[in-house]
Amino acid sequence: MESTQTDHNRHQGSGQEQGKRPRVVVVGGGFGGLNAARSLRKADVDVTLIDRRNFHLFQPLLYQVATGTLSPGNIASPLRVIFRRQKNCFVRLGEVTDFDLDENCVLLGDERVPFDYLVVASGAVDFYFGNDDWAQEAPGMKSIESAIEIRREVLSAFERAENANDAEERNRALTFVIVGGGPTGVELAGAISELARHTMRNDFRRIDPSHSKIYLLDASPRVLEHYPEDLSQKAQADLERLGVEVKTKSRVTAIEPDYVEYTLDGETQRIESETVLWAAGVRASPLGAKLAEAAGVELGRGGQVAVNNDLSVEGHSNVFVIGDLAAAKGEDGKQLPGIAPVAIQEAAYLGKKVIPARIKGEEPKPFRYRDLGTMAVIGRRAAIAQVGERHFSGTIAWLMWLFIHLMQLVQFQNRMLVFVQWGWSYLTWGKTTRLITGHPGDDMEQVSPNAAANAKPEPHAAASS
Amino acid sequence: MESTQTDHNRHQGSGQEQGKRPRVVVVGGGFGGLNAARSLRKADVDVTLIDRRNFHLFQPLLYQVATGTLSPGNIASPLRVIFRRQKNCFVRLGEVTDFDLDENCVLLGDERVPFDYLVVASGAVDFYFGNDDWAQEAPGMKSIESAIEIRREVLSAFERAENANDAEERNRALTFVIVGGGPTGVELAGAISELARHTMRNDFRRIDPSHSKIYLLDASPRVLEHYPEDLSQKAQADLERLGVEVKTKSRVTAIEPDYVEYTLDGETQRIESETVLWAAGVRASPLGAKLAEAAGVELGRGGQVAVNNDLSVEGHSNVFVIGDLAAAKGEDGKQLPGIAPVAIQEAAYLGKKVIPARIKGEEPKPFRYRDLGTMAVIGRRAAIAQVGERHFSGTIAWLMWLFIHLMQLVQFQNRMLVFVQWGWSYLTWGKTTRLITGHPGDDMEQVSPNAAANAKPEPHAAASS
Repeated sequence: MESTQTDHNRHQGSGQEQGKRPRVVVVGGGFGGLNAARSLRKADVDVTLIDRRNFHLFQPLLYQVATGTLSPGNIASPLRVIFRRQKNCFVRLGEVTDFDLDENCVLLGDERVPFDYLVVASGAVDFYFGNDDWAQEAPGMKSIESAIEIRREVLSAFERAENANDAEERNRALTFVIVGGGPTGVELAGAISELARHTMRNDFRRIDPSHSKIYLLDASPRVLEHYPEDLSQKAQADLERLGVEVKTKSRVTAIEPDYVEYTLDGETQRIESETVLWAAGVRASPLGAKLAEAAGVELGRGGQVAVNNDLSVEGHSNVFVIGDLAAAKGEDGKQLPGIAPVAIQEAAYLGKKVIPARIKGEEPKPFRYRDLGTMAVIGRRAAIAQVGERHFSGTIAWLMWLFIHLMQLVQFQNRMLVFVQWGWSYLTWGKTTRLITGHPGDDMEQVSPNAAANAKPEPHAAASS
Repeated sequence: MESTQTDHNRHQGSGQEQGKRPRVVVVGGGFGGLNAARSLRKADVDVTLIDRRNFHLFQPLLYQVATGTLSPGNIASPLRVIFRRQKNCFVRLGEVTDFDLDENCVLLGDERVPFDYLVVASGAVDFYFGNDDWAQEAPGMKSIESAIEIRREVLSAFERAENANDAEERNRALTFVIVGGGPTGVELAGAISELARHTMRNDFRRIDPSHSKIYLLDASPRVLEHYPEDLSQKAQADLERLGVEVKTKSRVTAIEPDYVEYTLDGETQRIESETVLWAAGVRASPLGAKLAEAAGVELGRGGQVAVNNDLSVEGHSNVFVIGDLAAAKGEDGKQLPGIAPVAIQEAAYLGKKVIPARIKGEEPKPFRYRDLGTMAVIGRRAAIAQVGERHFSGTIAWLMWLFIHLMQLVQFQNRMLVFVQWGWSYLTWGKTTRLITGHPGDDMEQVSPNAAANAKPEPHAAASS
């Protein structure tokens, strides 16, 4: 199989004659890109999937890595393994830097990868509403590295508390602030509370971790504001039952190494905390701006690229944008939310309908999102779900959540292992991947009782990526 | 349980009256320290276990993290979980900086932790024979971070090869050099070969990973030189069957970003490679020198501290050194090897015999190491083992290795999960934790076909710790 071809820009499946088939380049190996490439597995095309990372990440369970239940390996699958048997798919590790839509090329630095059809699905990144310095103090939840950073910060906080010299220092270490009351913030707050109240309850000798204070701040009037109001209320009640202090209508105005400030009813409040986690906002990946500029189309407020009703970019019927990067509209005219089911349906639509139709010179039917429901999990036997007009909460919603997430995990092995790990965790409240890894030097500084609070080290640069 | 005591240097089990019982301070949570603390679980003492990391690492399987079979969470267990039910053990996360043996105190920066008995088991670190700059090019295998660094380097090399522009670049990327033919080097070489030849064989479209060149360099006349000669030969034959080129009597003289040089029979040879892994030497932790200086005793050539036959330091009958840090002697007068069984037996001897005897004012019997055998694994159904006078190899030795390592893993959950993961890997040749994580920026540079070879980024600072 070792190829001696010199024109390395022409990728094709092994055993296929070169250059005969339409070339589809997919940028991004998240839910959108992965499913776009997979849905083309029987199409008579050559697919090149380009990603910066060598794995697909099952983002919905990232918070379980951040709180020590799962290992990164449980929720990440190498793209090469996923596409091993899809012979028309070439996986290319690399970073797309720009697009040349006149020449139909994707640029990876100096290298040009030509395409006949392009699918851009580079997703979203954490967004700090212009306060980029907050990324230093409040890691987000978009990558394995940032989840491990959160795990390190949360676990180190308990260690600092155990080593604290006085009550003030101890209380500050045991105060956690999660900014953002969407699904990610709710999941994180619930999981940290369970970690403190159950998993770790016998692990320390001087502190009682269940005395931790966990705050969930959100600027909107209620948590999970995109969900029906009764489910928001259920979620808030579940959080409060877990000891989380939910502060709505609270807009964060400052994040410093040892405190957070926010305004509530026009007054500035302060919470002394060294552990602030960011779940308040994401923004479309910067590639969206590059693509919009190359195509001469509009960029939405959240950085998304405007698309036609076949998900193509205006004026470029062979260039498509899907997932969190796309400003696709639902039947009600509203922009579709940045969630996995939207990306997956868009991907299938491209792979099964639009690209085959274009190749045949036909015109595809417009994309139509089918809302199968949404859900969020708060903790053990506590979740909410909306399916059509029906609302679920409590144990039944939690079981639905569990079932759907297990089924969705990409690989059989991961599914089975996650199942075993979850089963074990459920029985024992155990979280055995509670490892403080990555920056041993930093940890030492953090847990040293003599380290000044404002000497807190900078989080890893990847925390904001 | 939240304590308001102000004298935070006095640790004791909950429910125990303060300051009444002898205080045993254990430095290090590896095999030695962990087992020393555990063997004191029924003793009428207060144990403080101090470690820089919050977990015990099962080092013998670290190479499986480095080659993508296991997740870090599979081979690391939080110390607090291990000691949750041992109420007389206080786990203290912190870095010991020095010892004050006149005042019987361990120093953590400015903090002083007093002891009545001290057990120092801070283990070993990678040693580059004075060529500390080699650590930049050739990561070692002593920490989770360095194992993940190795995983990143090895996996990125295949990606670079897939993206290479010419045969020379491709061949250099597919050349791996492991320095050191001891058990770790043999395990790494075998595992990388299996990764290339089996696990990844269908994963690429332009390269055939099984064309990789894997070199194992060792300065001594044979691999596994501390094993009987027939087993060395078996191991070398197994390695060669796996396609590893074993180069004995080969002393490395230079490690640069894109090549390694070594001398063989007085001649300098060069291997073009960007992926060099270090398994050639370890040295006792730097705390050994601090302790030897504080106690006024001799420091061995490998940095180990000389000990009496009860493992105490000369002139300090309440200060003990065990594991890789100790220069303990066997019955034949030779220094005992730096392997887990030695550390574990020394720990049990201290906890069960010496410290209880000292407390009662009795004199313990000298330590005697009972050699239960040694083993090394090369690959699937390929291992060697020596048990007393009997030598084993092939499948039987591999099954022994498998059984013993499963039994030794600290926690039941880890054992079960590793068992599931291994079973799955065995059936499928799959390695699903093949994740390139940690330094996305570096990866991009490494896999970019345009990056100059000498622009290879520095490995993580932890690689040499």
